[in-house]
Amino acid sequence: MSEQPLGTLSAEDLTTLYTQYQSKQLALDLTRGKPSAKQLSLADRIDGILDGNYLTSGTDTRNYGGLEGIAEIKPLGSWLLDTPESAVIAGGNSSLTMMYQTVLFQKLFNPAWQGDISFLCPTPGYDRHFSICEELGINMVPVPFRAGGPDMDAVEALVANDTSIKGIWCVPKYQNPTGVTFDDATVKRIANLGNLAGDGFIVLWDNAYAVHHLDNNRPDVLADFWALSEAAGTLDSAFLFASTSKISHAGSGVAFMACSESQRAFFLKHLGMSAIGPDKVGQLRHVALFPTKSALANHMALHAELIKPRMEMVVNKLDQHLNSGEQGEWTRPNGGYFVTFYAPEGTATKIVALAAELGVKLTPAGATHPYGNDESDSVIRLAPSFPTIAELDEAMDAFCLCVAIATAK
Amino acid sequence: MSEQPLGTLSAEDLTTLYTQYQSKQLALDLTRGKPSAKQLSLADRIDGILDGNYLTSGTDTRNYGGLEGIAEIKPLGSWLLDTPESAVIAGGNSSLTMMYQTVLFQKLFNPAWQGDISFLCPTPGYDRHFSICEELGINMVPVPFRAGGPDMDAVEALVANDTSIKGIWCVPKYQNPTGVTFDDATVKRIANLGNLAGDGFIVLWDNAYAVHHLDNNRPDVLADFWALSEAAGTLDSAFLFASTSKISHAGSGVAFMACSESQRAFFLKHLGMSAIGPDKVGQLRHVALFPTKSALANHMALHAELIKPRMEMVVNKLDQHLNSGEQGEWTRPNGGYFVTFYAPEGTATKIVALAAELGVKLTPAGATHPYGNDESDSVIRLAPSFPTIAELDEAMDAFCLCVAIATAK
Repeated sequence: MSEQPLGTLSAEDLTTLYTQYQSKQLALDLTRGKPSAKQLSLADRIDGILDGNYLTSGTDTRNYGGLEGIAEIKPLGSWLLDTPESAVIAGGNSSLTMMYQTVLFQKLFNPAWQGDISFLCPTPGYDRHFSICEELGINMVPVPFRAGGPDMDAVEALVANDTSIKGIWCVPKYQNPTGVTFDDATVKRIANLGNLAGDGFIVLWDNAYAVHHLDNNRPDVLADFWALSEAAGTLDSAFLFASTSKISHAGSGVAFMACSESQRAFFLKHLGMSAIGPDKVGQLRHVALFPTKSALANHMALHAELIKPRMEMVVNKLDQHLNSGEQGEWTRPNGGYFVTFYAPEGTATKIVALAAELGVKLTPAGATHPYGNDESDSVIRLAPSFPTIAELDEAMDAFCLCVAIATAK
Repeated sequence: MSEQPLGTLSAEDLTTLYTQYQSKQLALDLTRGKPSAKQLSLADRIDGILDGNYLTSGTDTRNYGGLEGIAEIKPLGSWLLDTPESAVIAGGNSSLTMMYQTVLFQKLFNPAWQGDISFLCPTPGYDRHFSICEELGINMVPVPFRAGGPDMDAVEALVANDTSIKGIWCVPKYQNPTGVTFDDATVKRIANLGNLAGDGFIVLWDNAYAVHHLDNNRPDVLADFWALSEAAGTLDSAFLFASTSKISHAGSGVAFMACSESQRAFFLKHLGMSAIGPDKVGQLRHVALFPTKSALANHMALHAELIKPRMEMVVNKLDQHLNSGEQGEWTRPNGGYFVTFYAPEGTATKIVALAAELGVKLTPAGATHPYGNDESDSVIRLAPSFPTIAELDEAMDAFCLCVAIATAK
C-alpha cells in the first residue's frame, strides 16, 4: 500500500485503492483469538508424553472419579490462578464451562440469586461472558472500561446502591479485547466489592491471559487478587479462572478455577450431579508437559515469538496509516491476543462492512458489548494470532483503508 | 467356605463362620461398575496413537471449535447408538453430562416443562439418573422393572393420564442394575410413548452397555429404538446416549448422543453458550483406536475375557451357596457390569450392614431406587468388575454368608 498515511489521501485516491483491493479477492479472518497452527505445534509432543505411565502415586488416571482433578495438576493451576494449590479445582477442556457452571449453580441454588438479578459488564469485554448472562436470564449493566481497568467509581456506586447486582465479569490481565491489565488500586477495590454489595455477590475473575506476555522479561504484573480478597474478608465472592487453552492445545487443554472453601463445597456438590470426573489422563499429560514453572515460562516464550510480531504489526500498521485521534485510537498491549480499535463514533459498523466486502472478516461491531449494543458504534476487536504474517500484513492494510474511507470527511 | 449350601447350616454354624470371616479383616469393594486396571490397559496404546497427526481432512483437532464433534468420530457414535451418523453429537468424556445437559436445557427453556413436572423411573435403576432429577427439582415416579423391561402397562397408564410426566429413564441393554435387555415389544411401546404423553415428553435412552456382551457370539439383541421412534412419529422424544467409558479409558473416553434435527438444533444452541467445543484430539485418538466396527468388536471381546469370569463367579456363588426363592433371587445377565440380588423383603439393609462389618463394601441398600427409597428393602446391586478374581471369590463367599444369616429363620 501507499507509503503516505491514508489520512492524507483524497477521497478519490481512497476509492481507487479500495477498488484495487476488491480485485484481490482476499479471504482473511481477524475474528477470533485462535492460536495459529505453529503455536499449537509447540505442544505436539503431548500425545505420547505419558509413555504408558497412567498412574500417579494415588490415582489411576484412566478410571472414573476425581471430581476436583488430580493432585499433581494443581501446581500448574496455582501458577496460572495465583492462588494456593488447595483452592484449585482442575476441570475439563474449558474454563468457559466452569464459569457457566459457576453462574448456573448460583442461579439455580443460591437463595440470594432468585428473582431479577444483574451483572456488571466492564465494556468492551468478552462476548462469551455476556452470552452466559443472556442465556441464564441475568440482566447486564455495562460499565466503562478505562486505562487501569473498569471505572471503579461507577462500579462501586452501582454495587452499593443496587442489591440485585450479583456479579461482575473481569478479565484482569491483557483484557479481552483491550489488552489492558488492571492496575493495583483497581484490583484492590474489586476485592472489596463483596463488602459493599448485597448477599451472594461474586467476582468472575477470568485470568485467561495470565502468562501470555509478549515479552517474558517485561510482563505486566497483576496484583494478587486472592490475597487482597482474603485480606478484605471477601473470599466467598472470589471465583478465579484460567486454562491452558492458549498454552497447550486450544481445544484440549485443562481448565482451572479457584474459590473459597465453602464455595468449593457448594460447587463440587452440584458439579457432582452432572459429572463423575474430568479427563484425568489429559491432566496428567499436562503435568508431564509443564513439570515446573520455568518450563511453563519457557513454553510461553515460544508462543511470544509467534504472537509478538503479529501484535506489533497490528499496532505498527495503525500507527503508520492512520492519524491517532482523528481516525480512531488503539491499544498497545503487552500481552494477550487482542488489540482494540476505537473508531470515531458511528463508524465501526461501516468499517466492518467495508472490510467484509474486501474479504477481511472482523468481529461484528458491537460484539464486545452486552446485547451486542455498542451505542457509540466505535469498538472493533482485532485478533491477529491466527493468520500468517503475510496475511496479516494484507489484512491490516485493507483494514486501515476501510477506516480511512469510513472516517473521511 | 463350606461345600454345604449355607441354607442348610444351623444358626450356630453360620455365626461361627461369620466370626471366622471377621478375623480375616477383608477390604473388598463391590460398589461401583468400575473397569479393572487390566481392562483399562487394553486401551493404553491410545496415548501416542496419533503419531503427530492432529489434522483431519477438514479440521485441526488441536484448535477451538467443532461443537458437535469431529465428523470422523461419528461412525463410532452410530455403532454404539444404533442411529444414523448424521444424528450423532460427540461430546466430552461423560455421557452423564450430556444427559444432565439434555434435562437442564429442557427444564430451563422448554415452555412445556415449566411448573411441577415428573419423570418415570423404572426401578431398580441407575442412581446417577435419579440424582439428576433430584438436583433439578423433577419429581420421580418409580415404575416396576420386569423380565422384559419396565412394566409398560403401568408406564402407558401414567403417561396417558398425567401430562406433567415429561420423561422416562431407560437403560435398555444389560440394564443397570438388573442386566436385563428390553424385549422388542417393550422397545416398540416405549417408542410410542411420545404419542400418548403431554407436550415435551422425552425418553432418555442410556445405551451405556451397547456392545458390552459377555460373549460376542451370543449377544442380547436390542430392537432399533431410533427406527421405531421414526416409524411412530416420535423422534422428537428420542434422546439416545452412549460412551466409550467402559470401552477405552473410563475417565477419558468419548460420549455420544443422538436426537432429532429440531432437538439437535435446540441442544447445540444452548450447549454453545457453555462451551466452545469438545476435546477433538481425544476424539481423534478414539478414531485411531477403533477404525472399524470389527476393531471395536474385537476390543470388546478382550473386555469380555476379563468380565465374563467375574460375572459368572457372582452367579455361580449365589447358585452354590443360596436357595433361590427362599434366600433371595438373582439375575443372570448376558452382558453389562451388574448382577442384581433381590433379597427377601426387609433384609437388604441388614445384609449390607453385615457385609460391611466383614469388610465387604456394597452399594447402600436403596441406592437403586428414586430418593434412595426401596420400600421392600430388597434390592442389592453387585458390581464385580473391579476386584481380582481371588478378591471376588472371597467377597462373594462373605456376601452369601451375610445373606444366609440375615434370612435365617
